[in-house]
Amino acid sequence: MNSLERLIQEFSKLPGLGKKSASRIAYHLLKTDEHKVDALVNAITTVKKTLKECGVCGNYADSNPCPLCSDPHRDNSVICIVEEARDILTIEATHEYKGLYHVLGGVLSPIQGIGPNELRIRELLIRIQPPVQECIIATNPTVEGDTTALYLGKIVKDTGIVVSRIALGLPVGGDIEYADRLTILQAMKARTRL
Amino acid sequence: MNSLERLIQEFSKLPGLGKKSASRIAYHLLKTDEHKVDALVNAITTVKKTLKECGVCGNYADSNPCPLCSDPHRDNSVICIVEEARDILTIEATHEYKGLYHVLGGVLSPIQGIGPNELRIRELLIRIQPPVQECIIATNPTVEGDTTALYLGKIVKDTGIVVSRIALGLPVGGDIEYADRLTILQAMKARTRL
Repeated sequence: MNSLERLIQEFSKLPGLGKKSASRIAYHLLKTDEHKVDALVNAITTVKKTLKECGVCGNYADSNPCPLCSDPHRDNSVICIVEEARDILTIEATHEYKGLYHVLGGVLSPIQGIGPNELRIRELLIRIQPPVQECIIATNPTVEGDTTALYLGKIVKDTGIVVSRIALGLPVGGDIEYADRLTILQAMKARTRL
Repeated sequence: MNSLERLIQEFSKLPGLGKKSASRIAYHLLKTDEHKVDALVNAITTVKKTLKECGVCGNYADSNPCPLCSDPHRDNSVICIVEEARDILTIEATHEYKGLYHVLGGVLSPIQGIGPNELRIRELLIRIQPPVQECIIATNPTVEGDTTALYLGKIVKDTGIVVSRIALGLPVGGDIEYADRLTILQAMKARTRL
């Protein structure tokens, strides 16, 4: 295997990239100025060197605890539980939620051998003490995400604090005609009084 | 901008990657073992260090002339003209064509200021001498690719050798119902006797 084939192979290991898109990127890099490629390589190595998992919430940051956990302006009475660190970025982009986060690092999946001990659940239970009053579960609405939400809901409720899950329903701008049956069912069940 | 945001920005500069897919890759790398990330970084830097443009055909290779140009088993009477080096990979994957290649490095595009001097056309004309007997033009069937094919067809024909262009028509496994008007027109025009 020559160096170009190896590069294409390395790129196709990344999520969302197939062989075609990986080879497109590899050829693009071949044509790109050396210093622009260096910028990419530096960005990768810097991130791997500087960013570590926050010992509290599990987010990636260059400080421990991370800026979110150590920000005195955040509402430390609420913890939003997410599957992956990247979900924090998405929720933060709304600029609405002001509480803290907790990254599970995955979802329960017996098939893949991921049980409660493989997730950051012990770390979550340690955090559930005053001033924390509520946990918002924001796992994905998938089979595994639902199972995880149910499991977490039960064990967190046992500690006596309020547990909620983000609403399921039609996405804003969505179309009932194209919505799947389960989404419609959820949207009907969770209907709100006007 | 922190190091993670910079990495996402660098990835979104790559072809085919938007902000979402770039951030997915960045978070994936964060979770990935150090040595696997090193493999990617090494593959990039190795390719940039070792691969150079072949002085003859314009393909990327670690030798000059490239293995294709210096292979005595290739048919040196035919040159297939392609837009980009990556097109060679696609044609080679068919294992049918045994001739040589010539990479233009783009297509004629007056809007983007790309004229004949910006492409490797001078290098092509130097190559057109015995034993070369035929040029196959394999530019893409786009407006720019068509213009480039017409232009090349004219100047190569002037040198007295045979010029052809790869056939346009319905893709194998395609469906007439979903084919666009121009493809149907081309397929009708280029019909072959049974």
